[in-house]
Amino acid sequence: MFIFIMKSVTKKIRNAFLLVCLGLSSHHVFAQHPNLDITSDDVTSMRAAVESNGLFQQAYLAQKAMLDEQILLPVDVPVPKDGGGGYTHERHKKNYQLMYDAGIVYQITQDKRYANYVRDMLLEYAQLYPTLPPHPKRKIGKQNPGKLFWQSLNEAVWLVYTSQAYDLILPSLSAGEKTTIEEGLFRPIAKFLSVDSPETFNKVHNHGTWTTAAVGMTGYVLGELEWVEQALYGLDKSGKGGFLKQLDELFSPQGYYNEGPYYQRYALMPFVVFAKAIQTNQPERKIFEYRDGIVLKAIDTTIQLSYNKLFFPINDAIKSKGIDTIELVNGVAVAYGLTNDAGLLDIAKQQNQILLTGDGLKVAQALDNKLTQPYQFKSVAFGDGNDGKQGALVIMRQNVNGEQAVLFKPAAQGLGHGHFDKLTWQLYDRGEEIVSDYGAARFLNVEAKFGGRYLPENKSWAKQTVAHNTVVVDETSHFNANVKKGNANHPELLFFDKNDHVVMSSAKIDTAYKGVSLKRTMALINLPTKNNEAPELSFVVDVFDVQSKNKHQYDLPVHYKGHLISTNFELDTQLTNLPVLGKDNGYQHLWLKAQAKPKAGLSQITWLNDNGRFYTSSSIMDGDTSIIFSQIGANDPLFNLRNENAFINRKANAKNHTFVSLIEPHGEYNPSKEFTLEAVSKVNKLSHQKIENIDVIEITLTNNKRYILAYNAQQNIKDKHVNRFSFNGSTYQFDGRFKLFDI
Amino acid sequence: MFIFIMKSVTKKIRNAFLLVCLGLSSHHVFAQHPNLDITSDDVTSMRAAVESNGLFQQAYLAQKAMLDEQILLPVDVPVPKDGGGGYTHERHKKNYQLMYDAGIVYQITQDKRYANYVRDMLLEYAQLYPTLPPHPKRKIGKQNPGKLFWQSLNEAVWLVYTSQAYDLILPSLSAGEKTTIEEGLFRPIAKFLSVDSPETFNKVHNHGTWTTAAVGMTGYVLGELEWVEQALYGLDKSGKGGFLKQLDELFSPQGYYNEGPYYQRYALMPFVVFAKAIQTNQPERKIFEYRDGIVLKAIDTTIQLSYNKLFFPINDAIKSKGIDTIELVNGVAVAYGLTNDAGLLDIAKQQNQILLTGDGLKVAQALDNKLTQPYQFKSVAFGDGNDGKQGALVIMRQNVNGEQAVLFKPAAQGLGHGHFDKLTWQLYDRGEEIVSDYGAARFLNVEAKFGGRYLPENKSWAKQTVAHNTVVVDETSHFNANVKKGNANHPELLFFDKNDHVVMSSAKIDTAYKGVSLKRTMALINLPTKNNEAPELSFVVDVFDVQSKNKHQYDLPVHYKGHLISTNFELDTQLTNLPVLGKDNGYQHLWLKAQAKPKAGLSQITWLNDNGRFYTSSSIMDGDTSIIFSQIGANDPLFNLRNENAFINRKANAKNHTFVSLIEPHGEYNPSKEFTLEAVSKVNKLSHQKIENIDVIEITLTNNKRYILAYNAQQNIKDKHVNRFSFNGSTYQFDGRFKLFDI
Repeated sequence: MFIFIMKSVTKKIRNAFLLVCLGLSSHHVFAQHPNLDITSDDVTSMRAAVESNGLFQQAYLAQKAMLDEQILLPVDVPVPKDGGGGYTHERHKKNYQLMYDAGIVYQITQDKRYANYVRDMLLEYAQLYPTLPPHPKRKIGKQNPGKLFWQSLNEAVWLVYTSQAYDLILPSLSAGEKTTIEEGLFRPIAKFLSVDSPETFNKVHNHGTWTTAAVGMTGYVLGELEWVEQALYGLDKSGKGGFLKQLDELFSPQGYYNEGPYYQRYALMPFVVFAKAIQTNQPERKIFEYRDGIVLKAIDTTIQLSYNKLFFPINDAIKSKGIDTIELVNGVAVAYGLTNDAGLLDIAKQQNQILLTGDGLKVAQALDNKLTQPYQFKSVAFGDGNDGKQGALVIMRQNVNGEQAVLFKPAAQGLGHGHFDKLTWQLYDRGEEIVSDYGAARFLNVEAKFGGRYLPENKSWAKQTVAHNTVVVDETSHFNANVKKGNANHPELLFFDKNDHVVMSSAKIDTAYKGVSLKRTMALINLPTKNNEAPELSFVVDVFDVQSKNKHQYDLPVHYKGHLISTNFELDTQLTNLPVLGKDNGYQHLWLKAQAKPKAGLSQITWLNDNGRFYTSSSIMDGDTSIIFSQIGANDPLFNLRNENAFINRKANAKNHTFVSLIEPHGEYNPSKEFTLEAVSKVNKLSHQKIENIDVIEITLTNNKRYILAYNAQQNIKDKHVNRFSFNGSTYQFDGRFKLFDI
Repeated sequence: MFIFIMKSVTKKIRNAFLLVCLGLSSHHVFAQHPNLDITSDDVTSMRAAVESNGLFQQAYLAQKAMLDEQILLPVDVPVPKDGGGGYTHERHKKNYQLMYDAGIVYQITQDKRYANYVRDMLLEYAQLYPTLPPHPKRKIGKQNPGKLFWQSLNEAVWLVYTSQAYDLILPSLSAGEKTTIEEGLFRPIAKFLSVDSPETFNKVHNHGTWTTAAVGMTGYVLGELEWVEQALYGLDKSGKGGFLKQLDELFSPQGYYNEGPYYQRYALMPFVVFAKAIQTNQPERKIFEYRDGIVLKAIDTTIQLSYNKLFFPINDAIKSKGIDTIELVNGVAVAYGLTNDAGLLDIAKQQNQILLTGDGLKVAQALDNKLTQPYQFKSVAFGDGNDGKQGALVIMRQNVNGEQAVLFKPAAQGLGHGHFDKLTWQLYDRGEEIVSDYGAARFLNVEAKFGGRYLPENKSWAKQTVAHNTVVVDETSHFNANVKKGNANHPELLFFDKNDHVVMSSAKIDTAYKGVSLKRTMALINLPTKNNEAPELSFVVDVFDVQSKNKHQYDLPVHYKGHLISTNFELDTQLTNLPVLGKDNGYQHLWLKAQAKPKAGLSQITWLNDNGRFYTSSSIMDGDTSIIFSQIGANDPLFNLRNENAFINRKANAKNHTFVSLIEPHGEYNPSKEFTLEAVSKVNKLSHQKIENIDVIEITLTNNKRYILAYNAQQNIKDKHVNRFSFNGSTYQFDGRFKLFDI
């Protein structure tokens, strides 16, 4: 006891000194425990809330019931042995969750059984930890090793939770117990993750974020503000590394995380948790205002990057991951706690998970009180890179008989989990994928599937260009599938703009292939109706312009989701034998199911999606472009790949080529109610001309209505640029980037 | 007016005479209109109900709003010209629905505009009908022609609705209008459908039911009780044909309709509608008590033949058809009106559709008052054929972490829409198909897909034996795919029995192939748990015994739904070239994806369904059985087929062979919450022995727990038969058909 007090006093003096140096007040630093993401004020409200009916009480009772079963079982702190998915790995993961949950239930119930459960486990860890060598399953040279886990990343995650659990039960501990736990566990593990692992700690990378968060939060609990300083500014406190640098570098100014939404939601967790702890302990740092509110922007952007509750599956992404992920549940709760933005409650409602925290309680009570407002999904171009100028991820949305979204991806490579899919796109309608991205080739944690890790086919198929909806030159992938080269180059967003009827964007890249320039312009359109009635017809217009001084083969795949209904040209289908389409770069995984060489004019391909709607892709044909129908599955000895379908427009032996297509949702197939409506496209003719710098696309419908979509995708034109062109004897004019003429 | 009264008096005299002859009272026959499926008493309640909040009011307002738009458009009664799907066909269908709806809204609102709308349309029909020759698109020798429609079936459906519409507006008409309409339309059409089309009218067949219902209902409205007599007993009133004979012949004693649930729900409509009209007009006929309540049984059986709201898709079935179909909405409403069975409200709730009838009102009010009780789905063997002894359709159900169902099909052929799939089975779990049936090859009403009719692949694939989960001998289909032969033969149900842990059934057929006897026994099992906790482990046991004096090739396919995860044997997968598996009888549509010849012992194949659960099929291998992995899609020039997967156990060159398999749901794949549980089967060993007449299956789990399932599938054993056998040195005994021993 005495020893502890002495230490504490020493620390206090040092901390006071530090605070003076920093010009920071200390009024929160020595507040009562708990004081991280849950404060003692929160606890007071939570204790009251569990006494009255409501979502919070329900969540609490469910959690407590689960925990009550668990704490009857013996504490198990095994000597680390297994890699990811193995017993000791999973057990240590489970332990931090149990300690965290028990800590909260202790605070709410004030029943010491829960605190003792955490204490006993921590004492075992305190005994074990100092004896541990680096983990036996570590991968030397590949991942920084942990001691409890094979990689230090898991160790940091463990500490983020366990420091909070400790904070929650601190008031229940004797001084001797505190000393044993801190000396045996928290000090060694914080040291191990910081000064003993400078590469990770200082790294401006997601692993670094978990590590700095873990050490910083432990610093708050133990009163080691020096650790917090290091967490914020790097080990040398220069600001070249650390949490703030990570906030500067890892997000774009709009809060987009360069690896894409699947990793964004994962990365989000330590940012939000640590920021909240900083806010609690040192509000004067105004961490949520840092970089113009970057943490809140990152949370909101994560939501924006979803469709029908699932994240857009660009790059290495497990496709079933969505907004109900715990990282975003936490993000939404913290953001709501700060902003009281009622739109967030819409998301919280869909997440259907109440956190047992102060913010969780605020969300629960707001939901109980039906304060929910619809969350507003928007059409946005999220600039990529820390400056927001390294290309962009473009989301276009509209509502035409259901929510529609187009993702257009002139984004940067996105590091090691990025795919070679510059300028690719995806289409969503009525809740479903229509033109899709394969996502990652992986069965997460399924041992039989390559140990649950990324499958070999993730590299041989999923990352390759042909696995996406963008141009492949000479059956090779962008940047020759070289990550380094990919990271060093990015597309350029030429424009993004929108009005009531059109959202449009254009981008280019000259570095994906040597000597080939790729430029794509996409528009999501709803046709004007009389008297401003709800729009009925919608299209995606896709103009992909490829230019080269040399001759190449250009392939433009459309990975469509649904059942092929019809084509307006004859198919030469493989009837008794399926050959493989190619040899490498993903082509070795494609069966060649059918091919065709449509006449010059309009080619039309119609498919039926599970959502009961038809989709027709209408393309301008020059008479020398072939269409290939493929299915994934060749060279797949263990059935690792999903057998999905695509059609590929192929222009061989050409220098320049422009692929012009229009994709149109239409009609309804309702076999349950036995009706089928508008199974046939309404597009009758399509033309494209380049008139000086203006692209002119004329769309003629079967009812003879005609529309002209004109745009100017030159680099660097002025906002008020006036465009003029003559077409079929008439003169047209528009300001800015584009106009849809209803003629 | 005078003329009308005179006629009416004449009729009354004749009718009174008839009634005396029949010993029937007349108190309902001359009740006020309306008096078919909706009575004037119903109307009184409905008028009150639309004044107060509730489901009925909502349904009424929605219906009325729709109708109000329609009646502004000009009446269109075109000269018949088009076949199914064409304009005049669809228009006449739409007209009867509009007249019926307008009739109801007239009764509720008493607003003559609605009655006049029906009147005007009927007057146009009365003018047109007498001028019509047989329909120009009739198919001579194939379908009985109509005049408004290409087949008389549609004409009968039209009249079922239109007679009701007329009944609903009768009070609004002048005598002259009545005469014009009855003389011009109802008398000629009733004559056309009855005395002029005796083959259809007298036919004991679904088309006959629509026709007798149409004529009988028209008879009630026009006071022509003679027509009713003919409808009930056939044109000659001998009882050899007509509605009652149809009730005798077309359903089994349990109310199973021999073509399967997809056609059962369709057939149901005229039975229910006409029975209800009979009940209203002549309650003394006790039609709903006829044949021990066969109409109500048929309604309930239709519900029982569903899983997760969809009908089991045996035979020609569109797979998305389910309990919300209008025929069953009507059936449930009428059944509830008669029985007040609160379990039916559970179904009505899921149907989410309120009828604007007296019964619809009762359902709506009961739902408003929250009287719903859970509907009880049961394990049942539905005897097939009018005597219930022509095989059976067996449904087994249990709840183990979700609702499970096994459909086992030792049923009769089921006429022209039947498939050659004797003894096939299907498995459902957690809302999804696990072992599936292709259903019909058809895109209903999608013109581009073979005019929306049954595709050629319905015959070349969907009906063939290999498209099902049952034994194929020498790559030919049951009965050589001859419908007549199929209809003339049926399997024999050996037994069906159940207890708390096992539902079991066995059946055989010797006529599917010449000289080959097929016998299959299936059990759905949940393993006993300590202290009667909820069961956790469940299995399907499948023993398929094939016997012949000559050598054959025996194929047993499992059409599995999901992604192949692993096999415990090596696969020889086609990597760069997919050959077709066979030449005919469905085999020409299968790509050969991989093959294997597992060692003697246990072969295991695991797949992952979209429901997030793993399924392992464990089979006893003799070292000489090969396994083929196939995908549908060969010889499919227009992409008409779904590319679904199967594995086929193939025993070549054998006289007798017994396929023994165990299918086991296990674990959970949850990539969203990032965990995977029990991805590996718990079955370690499986053995099968035939000890005299007893089949003994031993199941050993990975935790070394052992179970013995013993059964006696001999023909004709006594209920209290005692079975004894020795196994591994112990003696076992059980009564009746089977026992699961926990050893």
